Amino acid sequence: MSDKQLDKLLRDIASEGSVLPPNERRGFLKQALTVFGTAAGAFGTAAGALGTTAGAFANEQNLPPNVPSWTRSLGSGVVTNPYGQPSSFESHVKRRTVDWLTADRIASISFTPLGDLKGIITPSAVVFERYHAGLPQVNPHEHRLMIHGMVERPIILSMEDLMRFPSVSMVRFLECPANGGMEWRGAQMDRLQFSHGMLACCEWTGVLLSTLLEEVGIKQGASWILAEGADGAHMSRSIPMDKALDDALIVYAQNGEALRPEQGYPVRLINPGWEGNTSIKWLRRLKVGDKPWHHREETSKYTDLMPDGSSREFTFVQECNSVVTYPCPEKPVKNKGKLWIEGLAWSGRGKIKQVDVSVDGGVSWRATKFTSQILPKALTRFGLEWDWDGSPALIQSRAIDETGYVQPTYGQLRSVRGANSIYHKNAIHTWKLYPDGKVSNVQIS
Amino acid sequence: MSDKQLDKLLRDIASEGSVLPPNERRGFLKQALTVFGTAAGAFGTAAGALGTTAGAFANEQNLPPNVPSWTRSLGSGVVTNPYGQPSSFESHVKRRTVDWLTADRIASISFTPLGDLKGIITPSAVVFERYHAGLPQVNPHEHRLMIHGMVERPIILSMEDLMRFPSVSMVRFLECPANGGMEWRGAQMDRLQFSHGMLACCEWTGVLLSTLLEEVGIKQGASWILAEGADGAHMSRSIPMDKALDDALIVYAQNGEALRPEQGYPVRLINPGWEGNTSIKWLRRLKVGDKPWHHREETSKYTDLMPDGSSREFTFVQECNSVVTYPCPEKPVKNKGKLWIEGLAWSGRGKIKQVDVSVDGGVSWRATKFTSQILPKALTRFGLEWDWDGSPALIQSRAIDETGYVQPTYGQLRSVRGANSIYHKNAIHTWKLYPDGKVSNVQIS
Repeated sequence: MSDKQLDKLLRDIASEGSVLPPNERRGFLKQALTVFGTAAGAFGTAAGALGTTAGAFANEQNLPPNVPSWTRSLGSGVVTNPYGQPSSFESHVKRRTVDWLTADRIASISFTPLGDLKGIITPSAVVFERYHAGLPQVNPHEHRLMIHGMVERPIILSMEDLMRFPSVSMVRFLECPANGGMEWRGAQMDRLQFSHGMLACCEWTGVLLSTLLEEVGIKQGASWILAEGADGAHMSRSIPMDKALDDALIVYAQNGEALRPEQGYPVRLINPGWEGNTSIKWLRRLKVGDKPWHHREETSKYTDLMPDGSSREFTFVQECNSVVTYPCPEKPVKNKGKLWIEGLAWSGRGKIKQVDVSVDGGVSWRATKFTSQILPKALTRFGLEWDWDGSPALIQSRAIDETGYVQPTYGQLRSVRGANSIYHKNAIHTWKLYPDGKVSNVQIS
Repeated sequence: MSDKQLDKLLRDIASEGSVLPPNERRGFLKQALTVFGTAAGAFGTAAGALGTTAGAFANEQNLPPNVPSWTRSLGSGVVTNPYGQPSSFESHVKRRTVDWLTADRIASISFTPLGDLKGIITPSAVVFERYHAGLPQVNPHEHRLMIHGMVERPIILSMEDLMRFPSVSMVRFLECPANGGMEWRGAQMDRLQFSHGMLACCEWTGVLLSTLLEEVGIKQGASWILAEGADGAHMSRSIPMDKALDDALIVYAQNGEALRPEQGYPVRLINPGWEGNTSIKWLRRLKVGDKPWHHREETSKYTDLMPDGSSREFTFVQECNSVVTYPCPEKPVKNKGKLWIEGLAWSGRGKIKQVDVSVDGGVSWRATKFTSQILPKALTRFGLEWDWDGSPALIQSRAIDETGYVQPTYGQLRSVRGANSIYHKNAIHTWKLYPDGKVSNVQIS
């Protein structure tokens, strides 16, 4: 690949928001020969087990590496699975919960398996769950969305009505403000899935809330909207009018298909970049008013306990955050040598501008490359080559968003928030890599 | 929503490649009141069935529209389904096949349910299937990818080896060149799923083929690469070196999770924008050479029969194409009045620049709005408001890509290609809308 060709490709990807600078990448590849020399040793063993030998191609006989049974037989026909499933070898990729975290599973949470995921789209099947009264099974033909209160023309919409409005699709992250909440008091979860897995990113399709508000006509003085869910908890939050008129979306599709039941089927609110519980699922009612309602789930929960004992209400935005997804406790390192550290960064305030990685616990930092699109209020994938010599390491990532906000250390976060919080933890996270390749979750101030 | 706020939002979306011009949209909303007036009548009936009345909010009692059973009970707990599934009300969203199309289901195709999908991401579960010897069940721990031939350092990679290389994620469409092939001779399939459903768009993650070629070192004079699958057909295609060094991707993940079995688990080639069969699945071997191999699947199949009886070999690029996804035969129109015509456009040569829609069989055209990101070699979603008066209509879409190429009429396509082809049909498609709201597939020259 000539420099000219490579430059062209990188320009193309960059125009979608990705950056993978050519010179550094080529540098990686030159050095990578060493790594794969090492890996080839490991492979030699595996190849032996398969009855082939690495020497086969050393002789340039150009024989395929192995000829397993599935290459010598017919497979199954089309529509054997009209709605497909992952390979049975991927059954470990699933939502998991932490039993001691909640009293039951009806008002509880499960976690996205971030360590197994690639790119920036979270498969709908493994998006984390958060229920306040369990998962309701809603009949879309009976479901209605009512918009009333301080409006000129109150309305009740069927799903069919809703789908006649202009629609928009956006890729946006969704994060529970309790993500990482256990880490405040030092309960380091020994799995990336549990330390950061109240997080997902999907393509959401629906009607802008502003479109519906224009339809019903907002009365003079209206400044807040109550969003209420159809679940048994009647989960409800007060949303400021500015957000409703900005980018709030009434969503009926997720990653191309109908919204999943766990995500609010048949219709939910999505407030891009805001704490996930404001994005009311199974949305049945929007009431326009002139002040917040101070309902249960915005007073007894989802407020931030401050060092002086007061409760801070309405911390809507999920601030800039990041985490390394490889290596991590569930994805240890198999060999020394070159590897590709990667991870995810996100900010409720817009696009990610930069992500740095440290392998020495924050003493020194190196800029990473973006290997996905860079979209506002979306997960952004970063990567960095690293030649691991087998010594213990403290791996961290630090994201900076387009506002210039820099992800804080635990020390910086605690100096403002104390140590009694549950919500809105976005401190720099540390993985400790041991000489045997295992990884654990440690906290560094 | 003030004009200033609306302008800001639209600028934000536009920076991701979407355009939804403010003035026209606001025009839609003003007129939309009429539509929803009509729809409200239909709703009145439904509401009665539910035991509530539209009059409830006319009295401003602010009562919820209905209080169904799921709002008065607890639902199921988290991880009831660790790997989630769609709502049972969505069971019609699935791949389907056409039994008369092929002799059996082992060497056959199934179709993506485009009429039920939203946005630009195709859910992995319903991406169309195309097998030449059925779907093999590949063990990723035994699978190997060999790169040999005119290279300095032949190599055999395990999946683990492959994942140590730098990775990239891109959203790209995948289309079988036979998509719409039945339409050439006038066999109009009366379902969008069958007329255009050999099409999908996913986020693909993997290693650039150029990265691997740099790893093995290409010998002087090498200009082609044979890609071979591990299925029983040993499906193989010759790929020019220029493409291999441009944007060809060795893919192991799809929409965030591991590649699905139907899509080549654990690893496949993706040649963005090229006919799908070149993107070899279950990829086991890449052989570098200095000429094409002219294997079975690039001679007996996947060549274009021209009017003079000759066969045109190597028509790699999928040219600019589009189709209206609503209305369509499987999604008829329920009421007269305003509705949101929408559809998909794509081009193997880059980004979509413009899509026009006609409702009078191509006599007059109106520019549509893009309601998704606009990415190169990806599906792009367009939409247009239309006030249907209940008369018969001939609905078409016509896409133009960034090279300036305009999607042809059937007449224009046939003047070059004749009428005996199977592959590479991208003519402007027509849906006929009848006064009762039903839709059928008709061909207009």
